[in-house]
Amino acid sequence: MLDRIDVALGERSYPILIGAGAMADNSSLRSALPGNRVMVVTNETVAPLYLDALERALGEVRADVCVIPDGEGYKTLATYESVLDSLLAHGHPRTTTVIALGGGVVGDIAGFVAATYQRGVAFVQVPTTLLAQVDSSVGGKTAVNHPRGKNMIGAFHQPNLVLADTDTLRTLPDREFRAGVAEVIKYGVIKDPALFQFLIDERAAILARDEPALRHIITRSCAIKAAVVAADERETGERAILNFGHTFGHAIEVLTEFELLHGEGVALGMVMAADLSARLEWLDADTARRIKRLVADYGLPIVPPMNRLAPDDMLDVMGRDKKVRNGHLNLVLVRRLGEVAITDSANMALVRETLAAGQGLCNG
Amino acid sequence: MLDRIDVALGERSYPILIGAGAMADNSSLRSALPGNRVMVVTNETVAPLYLDALERALGEVRADVCVIPDGEGYKTLATYESVLDSLLAHGHPRTTTVIALGGGVVGDIAGFVAATYQRGVAFVQVPTTLLAQVDSSVGGKTAVNHPRGKNMIGAFHQPNLVLADTDTLRTLPDREFRAGVAEVIKYGVIKDPALFQFLIDERAAILARDEPALRHIITRSCAIKAAVVAADERETGERAILNFGHTFGHAIEVLTEFELLHGEGVALGMVMAADLSARLEWLDADTARRIKRLVADYGLPIVPPMNRLAPDDMLDVMGRDKKVRNGHLNLVLVRRLGEVAITDSANMALVRETLAAGQGLCNG
Repeated sequence: MLDRIDVALGERSYPILIGAGAMADNSSLRSALPGNRVMVVTNETVAPLYLDALERALGEVRADVCVIPDGEGYKTLATYESVLDSLLAHGHPRTTTVIALGGGVVGDIAGFVAATYQRGVAFVQVPTTLLAQVDSSVGGKTAVNHPRGKNMIGAFHQPNLVLADTDTLRTLPDREFRAGVAEVIKYGVIKDPALFQFLIDERAAILARDEPALRHIITRSCAIKAAVVAADERETGERAILNFGHTFGHAIEVLTEFELLHGEGVALGMVMAADLSARLEWLDADTARRIKRLVADYGLPIVPPMNRLAPDDMLDVMGRDKKVRNGHLNLVLVRRLGEVAITDSANMALVRETLAAGQGLCNG
Repeated sequence: MLDRIDVALGERSYPILIGAGAMADNSSLRSALPGNRVMVVTNETVAPLYLDALERALGEVRADVCVIPDGEGYKTLATYESVLDSLLAHGHPRTTTVIALGGGVVGDIAGFVAATYQRGVAFVQVPTTLLAQVDSSVGGKTAVNHPRGKNMIGAFHQPNLVLADTDTLRTLPDREFRAGVAEVIKYGVIKDPALFQFLIDERAAILARDEPALRHIITRSCAIKAAVVAADERETGERAILNFGHTFGHAIEVLTEFELLHGEGVALGMVMAADLSARLEWLDADTARRIKRLVADYGLPIVPPMNRLAPDDMLDVMGRDKKVRNGHLNLVLVRRLGEVAITDSANMALVRETLAAGQGLCNG
């Protein structure tokens, strides 16, 4: 049996099915398709591992495949256009379905294609990384990067179905797996102290990739994201809490020229956000330390490469963030485990202290 | 005083303001902008005529301008990308507004940019052709062309405001003006016998571009389109009646390699659709002749260039149309003036008769 989370968005509602073998759930898959054609978008790393299994699940459905190169560097308008070319070359009608088989990059590109091919066609996500399963495959954000900024071109386009198959995590490189855990820690901090505790208690099982432990953290993460997205699909308010750790993290990613994985940037960003929360006396210092310790316990970075992250540069990049409104830095800060709040008026002297603190963060 | 039509789409509702000097209605314009930045997208023909007037209406608002080449041939992903580049080079935030100043091509490209820049920003249409004022600026369809098909890449993205300034029609070339009338005839046929009669009775005033006559046909056309779009924003049903004449017309455009203007293709397509309606005995032959005569009276083509429109080629292109579902040709046919219906089961022998009839259409 698979776990099921429903994302409640009126006529755009859809289920997320989670567990071992989710990809083989051909009845769910077939009933999510409005027509009898699909275009599978995947990459050169994932295709040899899982394309056969997905095609088996599709059975009689006429499937074309578009294999794109692996890596964030290919999340471009050029790759997007190549997938559109392929859809048109194969004569796909409006009733086609685009299926993303891969991690966040594949999902973001395929989703943007689905959002815009013939002004929008059906979309199914089959995420194969932990990060994509707990975060990017849920919520309808699609995008490609522009040389001047990440995710600058895109659309909101909800999938019809998400199949999060825990079996696919067995082949995930360790570093990518840990980066995915960063987003799970985020959900614990912003909404779910029990999940935070589970991450502490079941660390060995999670790192051993035991199915019940994986399924639990994915299901809880998706349930939290689904509830937040249902309340604020287009990020006009509440949804911004999902950016906890991301404003700092994104600036770190930019200044380290994306040598860090997104989840690693988020990990560092969460430690900084917790540190700032403590400096502002929103949060007790002990909880800030617990957050930092959990991040460290999953082998995620807690010490930023300070020589490349001068506070002025960090503030400069943070000030150019998409999330900046009317010149104010919007930050998600912690009040207690499970409760965060958004502020656009954090004391900038304390923000600078956090940025300058480096290894001394939270005196951890 | 300007006429006002409201497009009722819940939280995406917006007004269309119609009349001489609509572009100078700076209070409406300013209140449609969520922030204090705008990007005006226009073309090299329209910019020298109307950009100054629009910039005056914008007053203190910080306006950047992106001038694209004139013509359907530039309605491409490359032009779309150049506008995105300009938005990013000038650091436009999420609160920016894209303003389309021009005809259908400018509106379609600028709208697709607005739909996808940072996953969607505000959009204002200032249409300067009759076709754009009565059709393409209303309803939220945005798109660019692909070498394999028109409007194959795009999104639904409603504007915040449409300013249809009848003064701008004074500079419109005669051929383009008449092509715009074709869409007005369409509204008369599908929904409004009184508008059809107005086009007959007031032909001299309309062709002389008298403001009250222009304002009347634009306001009626927008009112009809607004009602249809409000009932079916994403064209899952009723909205398809707006395609009257367009399935034939689009195939004619393709086979004549776009030497005809869109409105000219629609004019020929409407004559064919009326002819087929009469052959199927949905419509009396006299009304089919009246439709043909009105099209001719506005100097629009009623005789297709038969040597380039072999019935087999027409059927082939029509079969590849976006609007084809499950292999069935969807056609909008006329029952009487003001009433059309959609069928996917027209007698193909009679469709071929219409396509082969050429000059003999309706024995007119």
